[in-house]
Amino acid sequence: MVRVKVHGKKVSVKAKVKRKTARTTGPDYPRYLRGKDLITTQEWEKKDLDVVLRTANEMKKNRFRHPLSQSMYNKSFFMFFYNPSVRTRQSFEVAATELGGHALFLEPGGMRLKTARTAGETIEDAANVMSRYAAGIGIRILEDKITYYGEGDQLLRDYARWASIPVISMAHDKYHPCQGLSDIMALQNRLGDLKGKKALLVWGKGALARSWSSIQEFLLIASRFGMSINVASPEGYDLDPDVMKNVKKNCDGNSQELKITHDMKEGYDNVHVVYSRNWMTPQAYRNSEFHKQEEIDKSLQYQEWICDANKMKLTRNALFIHPMPVDRGNEVTDEVASGRNSVIYEIAENRLHVQKAVMALTMGDF
Amino acid sequence: MVRVKVHGKKVSVKAKVKRKTARTTGPDYPRYLRGKDLITTQEWEKKDLDVVLRTANEMKKNRFRHPLSQSMYNKSFFMFFYNPSVRTRQSFEVAATELGGHALFLEPGGMRLKTARTAGETIEDAANVMSRYAAGIGIRILEDKITYYGEGDQLLRDYARWASIPVISMAHDKYHPCQGLSDIMALQNRLGDLKGKKALLVWGKGALARSWSSIQEFLLIASRFGMSINVASPEGYDLDPDVMKNVKKNCDGNSQELKITHDMKEGYDNVHVVYSRNWMTPQAYRNSEFHKQEEIDKSLQYQEWICDANKMKLTRNALFIHPMPVDRGNEVTDEVASGRNSVIYEIAENRLHVQKAVMALTMGDF
Amino acid sequence: MVRVKVHGKKVSVKAKVKRKTARTTGPDYPRYLRGKDLITTQEWEKKDLDVVLRTANEMKKNRFRHPLSQSMYNKSFFMFFYNPSVRTRQSFEVAATELGGHALFLEPGGMRLKTARTAGETIEDAANVMSRYAAGIGIRILEDKITYYGEGDQLLRDYARWASIPVISMAHDKYHPCQGLSDIMALQNRLGDLKGKKALLVWGKGALARSWSSIQEFLLIASRFGMSINVASPEGYDLDPDVMKNVKKNCDGNSQELKITHDMKEGYDNVHVVYSRNWMTPQAYRNSEFHKQEEIDKSLQYQEWICDANKMKLTRNALFIHPMPVDRGNEVTDEVASGRNSVIYEIAENRLHVQKAVMALTMGDF
Repeated sequence: MVRVKVHGKKVSVKAKVKRKTARTTGPDYPRYLRGKDLITTQEWEKKDLDVVLRTANEMKKNRFRHPLSQSMYNKSFFMFFYNPSVRTRQSFEVAATELGGHALFLEPGGMRLKTARTAGETIEDAANVMSRYAAGIGIRILEDKITYYGEGDQLLRDYARWASIPVISMAHDKYHPCQGLSDIMALQNRLGDLKGKKALLVWGKGALARSWSSIQEFLLIASRFGMSINVASPEGYDLDPDVMKNVKKNCDGNSQELKITHDMKEGYDNVHVVYSRNWMTPQAYRNSEFHKQEEIDKSLQYQEWICDANKMKLTRNALFIHPMPVDRGNEVTDEVASGRNSVIYEIAENRLHVQKAVMALTMGDF
Repeated sequence: MVRVKVHGKKVSVKAKVKRKTARTTGPDYPRYLRGKDLITTQEWEKKDLDVVLRTANEMKKNRFRHPLSQSMYNKSFFMFFYNPSVRTRQSFEVAATELGGHALFLEPGGMRLKTARTAGETIEDAANVMSRYAAGIGIRILEDKITYYGEGDQLLRDYARWASIPVISMAHDKYHPCQGLSDIMALQNRLGDLKGKKALLVWGKGALARSWSSIQEFLLIASRFGMSINVASPEGYDLDPDVMKNVKKNCDGNSQELKITHDMKEGYDNVHVVYSRNWMTPQAYRNSEFHKQEEIDKSLQYQEWICDANKMKLTRNALFIHPMPVDRGNEVTDEVASGRNSVIYEIAENRLHVQKAVMALTMGDF
Repeated sequence: MVRVKVHGKKVSVKAKVKRKTARTTGPDYPRYLRGKDLITTQEWEKKDLDVVLRTANEMKKNRFRHPLSQSMYNKSFFMFFYNPSVRTRQSFEVAATELGGHALFLEPGGMRLKTARTAGETIEDAANVMSRYAAGIGIRILEDKITYYGEGDQLLRDYARWASIPVISMAHDKYHPCQGLSDIMALQNRLGDLKGKKALLVWGKGALARSWSSIQEFLLIASRFGMSINVASPEGYDLDPDVMKNVKKNCDGNSQELKITHDMKEGYDNVHVVYSRNWMTPQAYRNSEFHKQEEIDKSLQYQEWICDANKMKLTRNALFIHPMPVDRGNEVTDEVASGRNSVIYEIAENRLHVQKAVMALTMGDF
């Protein structure tokens, strides 16, 4: 904003040489995040996650006129959806749009990628060319599109190896970093500093045989930000041991407790946050197949594993969180999901702001 | 790029304060339309339809530099296509683009919405979250995606109930408001004031078993704008009685006639406008199924029900209108569809301008 | 609109009516290319191809701030993909985005176009309406979506006949003009003037039964730009005789040789460029069917027809080119495809710049 003379009067002229809002005031944004992959928050430094969260909060307050609002101007983000998704597609495509860019919705069904069984293009070739077209690549691969747990994670790492542009997980078998960041953003905004606050991740019954991505990411980032963690589930619902080792390490680093229990009530005791969610057993993938129906049948034996108002009374007036879509009547009652302490819509909204921040900082021009 | 004096020094100024075209002249646009749903024109006040039509005409003349041309800048419009469509998708997606925004093409096949039969997300949850991402929602649901007439209309109203952003019909089982506005826009531009002008809606044979959305909307809006109405069809092709009650009320309010006849020639007599179009019988939906083939078989018995040059001679040199795609050789002959009095392409073009006007006025930032 | 002093004179500053980068310097761009179809480079004058290549090179150097960088501002490009494609979709959609416009990804499965077998819309009607919405139309139709060689070419010409906006081939059964331009752009940048340089098109085995579009376009444009041409293949892999007649004419016009051989080694002898690619026989389409498996079976009999390092030693240190996706291990060894002389990624990148140039010049506003 400069002042110039017009008809003898001084007026403000908002120069604008570039299409970006001027950044004469406001914080600086580190440039070393440009080009960085985001496969899990665990692989980013805590201070850089803090920058993402600060930027996301700024963008939430100042949605269309943030200093980085044009940082993807005319740039393209490639979204590969091996699995369909409503929320993830909407939030990423809107994020790119609000940064002045464009997200391409790509379904790899239409791609001739080489597999063990078919002729096609190597990831080396595909990623090399995409790096010349796009500002970044997002990949979502879950559930029935993989033949063993970890295959999706490997695909992302193969893309990240060959691409010279950032590869961002839009949820894969192991991790869901943007979901984890959105959870933490909401919790910080509601509870302030999370150090020493207690979070419960509790298994819920359901007919959807859900993946571990969102919940593992939550355990990692919540423990990273100083929360103590309860995990409650029926027996047989252990998560990835490597991930749990990192959760333990994070808890230890912050002098917090990690408690794993099969006693539902013990889980709810005195917590500040309840995250009730269905997930599959470690046996869901066997012999290169996803045994979905078996998982559903097993899950529906545990009719008492639903988050309801009575159980919430055991907590310290806890917030209810969930990555959505919520399986109402299974994972949680309507009363809790639509209750005063539910922050599910706020978290879903945060996806947009977090993803804008991640895209701007890793792919943007500023 | 000009050089101006700033604090005594010459600097380059590349003007451009906001991305919007200046609005120092030109008419004002009412702000009370922001947030308004458009499920049928019948539920909007006539004066507000007039504003839409005036704005659409302005935008047609001034396609890229209208005062509202940037009113969707970087905003997103969600298009839910339960049924595929070429024209509707193209015209809405181009409309959002020309307003500086972006339309997401979403196919609910990729959505896990809860139904009586499946686990999934409630409309309450879906609409609440979308309201935090998008500027508006468009929904198209027709024909084989519903199990009874009226189910699509109910879906739109459920979305409208839970969404805090406008819900716009992109054609559903009952109504097609943007088509009706486009029809009227063309007729006003060709015939001037429509008060007292006569329109014929005439059934045409065909193998497409078409829905009632476009024709019911036309009857409602044409009668609203003062036209007198003839409806001609073989016996057994009655339309929705509730809609027809409103058409009658509209005609009465304008002291115009509503004539329903099974005599084709009587229908054509002395009219200014002919709308020949196939539609299904009230029996098309029975036992939660769409009996499409039965409708086609029945329809093809009426070989004489085609709009041709001879029948057009009975009119007052009438305009031929149709919402397209035209089923040439069934609904109408090539001679009439491509003839001098055909305004089908003009109407199709109007879809773009009308939808830009509706989006700008209900979702835009101005 | 404000009036400011500039060098002592009062001038109006409308700060930026258009969103384009100022064009005070730089070359002019001919306006007579506006509205021009691009079905094959053979139908464009050489001097106009030179303009496209010059513009594409400028855009490669100045990707986001070229004088024509905003020439598609808020305009729409319709992409019809009868066949799926990764590279072509990505490069066209990014091209439109980088010019400030938007490309719609349309799959004609969702279109009700009239065919001999079904009711639907005529190309006349579809193209007439699209001309009122879009700035241009791209069409891709290949392989299993046609019933005889030439049917796709006819479809493009039908669209071009009825559309008042440019129709651009995004690869069809006969031609692939943007691929050909990208090939030539890379060769010029590597080899300088192509006059008298020798190119080999050599058949490669493979399980993909590839169409003639890319290779025929290459032969046409390479011969047009003065290269001498070797074509080497097993017997029975002749290309379109009409196309080959034009290639011969182009060679003659430049006093260059066209040599067709079934001796692989003769083909490689002393060439500057090697293009190894699988293609189908003239018998691939018979009785309105695409005999894909038969083609694959036949192709895999020729195990020695693979481009490898030994064969490359017969050349003058030739560049290796290919339109991608590369069928590594069939058409070419990894060693050659990823070797120093491979320019496949550069050519793939050129697709973006060439298509931006073509869109800007034929559809843009400048």
